[in-house]
Amino acid sequence: MAAFALSLYLPAVARQHQAGQPKSPASQLETRFDQQLSPAHVGATIKELAAQPHHLGSARGKAVAEAILAKFKDYGWDARIATYQVLFPTPKTRVLEMTAPTRYKALLKEPALKEDASSGQEGQLPTYNAWGGDGDVTGQLVYVNFGLPEDYETLERLGIDVKGKIVIARYGRSWRGIKPKVAAEHGAIGCIIYSDPREDGYFEGDVYPKGAFKNEYGVQRGAVMDMVIYPGDPLTPGVGATENAKRLERSAAPTILKIPVLPISYHDAQPLLAALEGPVVPADWRGALPITYHTGPGKATVHLQVACNWDLVPVYDVIATIKGAQYPDEWVVRGNHHDAWVNGASDPISGIAALLEEAKAIGALVKSGYRPKRTLVYCAWDGEEPGLIGSTEWVEDHAEELQQKAVAYINTDGNGRGFLGAGGSHALTQLMDGIAKDVTDPQTKVSVYERRKALNLVRAAPAKRKELLDNKTLSLSALGSGSDYSPFFQHLGVPSLNLGFGGEDDGGEYHSIYDSYDHYSRFKDPEFHYGVALAQVAGRAVLRLADAEVLPFDFTDLYRTISGYVNELTAQATQMRESTEMENRLIAAHTYQLAADPTQPFVAPAPKAEVPYLDFSPLQNALVMLEKSSTKLRDTLSAAAVPPAVRQRLNEALYRAEQSLLTGNGLPRRSWFKHTIYAPGFYTGYGVKTLPGIREAMEQRNWKEAREQVRVVAEAVQRLSRKLEECASLIP
Amino acid sequence: MAAFALSLYLPAVARQHQAGQPKSPASQLETRFDQQLSPAHVGATIKELAAQPHHLGSARGKAVAEAILAKFKDYGWDARIATYQVLFPTPKTRVLEMTAPTRYKALLKEPALKEDASSGQEGQLPTYNAWGGDGDVTGQLVYVNFGLPEDYETLERLGIDVKGKIVIARYGRSWRGIKPKVAAEHGAIGCIIYSDPREDGYFEGDVYPKGAFKNEYGVQRGAVMDMVIYPGDPLTPGVGATENAKRLERSAAPTILKIPVLPISYHDAQPLLAALEGPVVPADWRGALPITYHTGPGKATVHLQVACNWDLVPVYDVIATIKGAQYPDEWVVRGNHHDAWVNGASDPISGIAALLEEAKAIGALVKSGYRPKRTLVYCAWDGEEPGLIGSTEWVEDHAEELQQKAVAYINTDGNGRGFLGAGGSHALTQLMDGIAKDVTDPQTKVSVYERRKALNLVRAAPAKRKELLDNKTLSLSALGSGSDYSPFFQHLGVPSLNLGFGGEDDGGEYHSIYDSYDHYSRFKDPEFHYGVALAQVAGRAVLRLADAEVLPFDFTDLYRTISGYVNELTAQATQMRESTEMENRLIAAHTYQLAADPTQPFVAPAPKAEVPYLDFSPLQNALVMLEKSSTKLRDTLSAAAVPPAVRQRLNEALYRAEQSLLTGNGLPRRSWFKHTIYAPGFYTGYGVKTLPGIREAMEQRNWKEAREQVRVVAEAVQRLSRKLEECASLIP
Repeated sequence: MAAFALSLYLPAVARQHQAGQPKSPASQLETRFDQQLSPAHVGATIKELAAQPHHLGSARGKAVAEAILAKFKDYGWDARIATYQVLFPTPKTRVLEMTAPTRYKALLKEPALKEDASSGQEGQLPTYNAWGGDGDVTGQLVYVNFGLPEDYETLERLGIDVKGKIVIARYGRSWRGIKPKVAAEHGAIGCIIYSDPREDGYFEGDVYPKGAFKNEYGVQRGAVMDMVIYPGDPLTPGVGATENAKRLERSAAPTILKIPVLPISYHDAQPLLAALEGPVVPADWRGALPITYHTGPGKATVHLQVACNWDLVPVYDVIATIKGAQYPDEWVVRGNHHDAWVNGASDPISGIAALLEEAKAIGALVKSGYRPKRTLVYCAWDGEEPGLIGSTEWVEDHAEELQQKAVAYINTDGNGRGFLGAGGSHALTQLMDGIAKDVTDPQTKVSVYERRKALNLVRAAPAKRKELLDNKTLSLSALGSGSDYSPFFQHLGVPSLNLGFGGEDDGGEYHSIYDSYDHYSRFKDPEFHYGVALAQVAGRAVLRLADAEVLPFDFTDLYRTISGYVNELTAQATQMRESTEMENRLIAAHTYQLAADPTQPFVAPAPKAEVPYLDFSPLQNALVMLEKSSTKLRDTLSAAAVPPAVRQRLNEALYRAEQSLLTGNGLPRRSWFKHTIYAPGFYTGYGVKTLPGIREAMEQRNWKEAREQVRVVAEAVQRLSRKLEECASLIP
Repeated sequence: MAAFALSLYLPAVARQHQAGQPKSPASQLETRFDQQLSPAHVGATIKELAAQPHHLGSARGKAVAEAILAKFKDYGWDARIATYQVLFPTPKTRVLEMTAPTRYKALLKEPALKEDASSGQEGQLPTYNAWGGDGDVTGQLVYVNFGLPEDYETLERLGIDVKGKIVIARYGRSWRGIKPKVAAEHGAIGCIIYSDPREDGYFEGDVYPKGAFKNEYGVQRGAVMDMVIYPGDPLTPGVGATENAKRLERSAAPTILKIPVLPISYHDAQPLLAALEGPVVPADWRGALPITYHTGPGKATVHLQVACNWDLVPVYDVIATIKGAQYPDEWVVRGNHHDAWVNGASDPISGIAALLEEAKAIGALVKSGYRPKRTLVYCAWDGEEPGLIGSTEWVEDHAEELQQKAVAYINTDGNGRGFLGAGGSHALTQLMDGIAKDVTDPQTKVSVYERRKALNLVRAAPAKRKELLDNKTLSLSALGSGSDYSPFFQHLGVPSLNLGFGGEDDGGEYHSIYDSYDHYSRFKDPEFHYGVALAQVAGRAVLRLADAEVLPFDFTDLYRTISGYVNELTAQATQMRESTEMENRLIAAHTYQLAADPTQPFVAPAPKAEVPYLDFSPLQNALVMLEKSSTKLRDTLSAAAVPPAVRQRLNEALYRAEQSLLTGNGLPRRSWFKHTIYAPGFYTGYGVKTLPGIREAMEQRNWKEAREQVRVVAEAVQRLSRKLEECASLIP
């Protein structure tokens, strides 16, 4: 009915996108590409590959890799499996019990459901967090909200210390690995992570199997490796985990946590949380369980025991290629992982099904005579779930070649019904803008660009709407971490994109046994139309990059983006300076004590050092250079045809330009991350920090380091600028 | 421990308030006044008067009035009881049951608790909402969030209509009477109001008797009379409900609702809400019950039956006076109600205990020779709970005399531990500022002004802190409704104040059987120190007004306040104009449809008429006059002594000046409310609307009326300005 109502309104808008100009050869190719894409086939691929649990190191995981290999070959690609040997912990002991004030033994188990055919299968990994330490600890329990640094500041205000205690944190707001890391930094001896129904359960919607959301027994598995130091095999940082690679001792691997960690359901969490004493938590710490949330500590005591098999297991990355006709040594790389925590119909199979659909379509085009100018490299990664392992090891193993040859890396990782999400290198803004305007939304028949823009407008604060309306170009988001683009993008400086649809595919199946074909086909993308839409978007990115005479990089968008980040930081510096001064005045006047309830524990905050004025001018001056050089390059390229003789040199310079933004030493305290513009946050994990060296130094109030990092970024921007000047000078 | 820690920090601050100048006679009087105040006596008064249920019309209600009368007499006051005959419904039938999809019969009953001695007493009014219509209805159930007009707009977007249905709304965000009124306006046939644990229950803290908050069986009683039309006896609008007063037919009384209404506990609400189908509600509609909140309608059907005894009952207002020595026809009026829904230890007895403590202290001062210059009129109102009945009838009965004689009305209504809250006529800002700086907070030993300011600073958005710090004067809040100041202030233009302490006295006892001495003495003000603090604040207001040679009105504060409101409205007009234009653009571009999930019901909003530019200049020009006249008067008064001969004329002109702000016709559609600056919101109830005629016309997008009301307010401000010029001209 609603879809019908919509159709009354939309034909005019839709028509304007269907009526076209005479088609160019490129768009004819894309039309033929589209004709090969089939929702039913996407659905069949998801059903097949998600049929059984298939985590890293499992027999079924190997079988899935082999099935994907066979598909690539069937589609006409050269394909092989690249193998690495990596550490991967799987649990042998998991115990969580409350021993006081009453006894409760946690179930630590998701039940099979008759409505979900695969939920009772053999071979499921139990509920656990990979890379927590082995340990057997007993202690008082403290609730730490999301377990972020600011949550511990709040606890400090309440006079509560977690030293020697076990903390319970709720999932959300950060990548999960941040929670036990920060807990350990504060002296906690164990960490429980639970799914609160506020973020992931009945608060959001009806629970599985009635609805899509997490039922009381659902548990989110997941890695807690300290991946913001480096991802991939903890024993082989910076190099491929080949059979004979030099390996760290496990005890020396800095990305393996020291304290035991266990994820639990809200069914298991409720008795623990209900037993807590101590102050009632602040309003924004309260979840949706029908209890009063207290911080603890008190009589509530828990026993947590985790022990793992710490085995070396094989990684099976499937690598498929079609050699470029004109520039075989320029690679367009496309990837999605194939390993799952359990069945993974949504994560990752819905993404790899789109990737395979593209491979099938391109294979068919090749069979009918098409040859891409550049080499296509399609990758199905293993071991993404435990820490981007398959992609990282392959990238580290081929680092030099990739920095020479990789034009771009296009990543996906799961997909569903809804709106286009696109993030990545901002020099690729125009490429993605063009694609998003050319691909039609399956439900509304306007472009996926227009639909996404409508969502942005409706969600925007009223004061932001004018600016959004006036902006006629797709906005790429900045990439943090959480999928396989990290090694390409943040370690090597390969221009990267991360693509997916979502927003009308909510659910609580993530990393649980309920991420199944049954769940996916009821709630995530029931008709698999968005699998096709994703193949259309990512396939166009591949084809346009593969066949462009001159690669579609436009660094004026990158300039504008970095410039925006610098404006953010200068405003933030001012705001921090003013708020610190005000805060110190209030502290000096005992304002916090006077406002506090004298019958409740309260520790007033300590004054903070004054915030100095920071000199951003080196970076601001570098940006003036970048504005000029990027504009000149853009104008030169649009004014004159590029002579065939210089094309290859120009293209190589264009796609390698992003590498100018790497800093050789990497970011402070995490040298693997070398990109000066984008990194996952040291204390947020998934969440991106743009200009991370400067921003995180400021957040940590390390003004000396902030000053140094301004210079580091300024030099990177200058390098890029000089690179772009070289590019422009190639054109006569 | 916390109090000790505090004492380390505070001596310097505290000392500065203890070391004093040589005392003036006025401050000596106040010191003697303070010496008469006893926390233990406040506690004893609360225990005595809250010992039994004592609602309007009950035998115990009469006994409480008589006990108060006896106390006043004992304290040396002239005292009598003023009696009126008013309509008051009490329930004879209350039924709520769900008949489909499963059966559930609501308990509609709060259980007695062994921890609460009075909770099992005879004579409690059952849980009900007075002034809902009698009715016996059965219908589908729809959840309407807080039941405000904007909630029905949201339902409309979801394609849901409440016509012919029974709605369930949660308490909060508005005065309760707004919910059934708006429901009936939308065609609902019945209204259930429940306490969601999000606002009033375990989400906020431990529940009674473990903690102070509402347990699952607690129910908030309360009036749902359409009090924003007029408060008081529905049958005698505008006149005192004397025995022979002309009365409306009950069916013609516009403030009695037409549909049945019943308040319920969250225990009774959960099965009903859990049975709802239809869309999942927006995130900010969700409460803290462990269910997925849906809108309905669907199979969930309820049967609601309410029938009342519609009896005329006697009101017993206790009126106590001490005649003024110098200006007996200038009255300082002080009031607090004595009737309760049940025992009412907090509401209202904690307030009247402070009032009686003042009366005791003033009586003692009189016995030792003190005589106030002006007449003191202390009032203990009956029938406040069902609709400000006792105060309204007495005020209507003495309207002319009060407009002649009443210098000010000082109201309280319940009290607890925490921070001073003070609202009222802004010309009394300086009076209250001085008092708040002179009264010491019992817990921290700084002034109650400083403590409140500390709270404001800590709670303020960082950007607002500078302005707050720089403002060295107490801010009075504007008064909406919800207590007995309404007839004095908004009907007659008597300058009014409403005073109380709170913020560290949270709980869920409001209007339930658990508002008991046991609850109060555990959670609200265990040592009764804030009862004394309230007596100090309100008593000082009484004494300073009673004894001032020149009454402490300063209209420059009123000017600044009104000017601030006008700035708000001009900004709001601009914001409405811009947002309407943007909204209409988005609607025209089908943006809302494109952003909506096509599988879910969604009705796009309709475009709204453009917002015209409004001419605020008549009011702005009137404010220029007021700035001049108020400044001139202030400067004249501070420059020269007022000759005794003109004092009485000047004082009368000063205290009657607020009446210039009344408009003869009253506010549109509710002529009883005559104040042009302050009124309860037509759709918020308790919540104040400042410049209500203009503001509410704008909110209803009635631009013609907004223009008219600009003129009405401008004329009122001009009248005030001329009055102030007259005052200034009295001084030679």
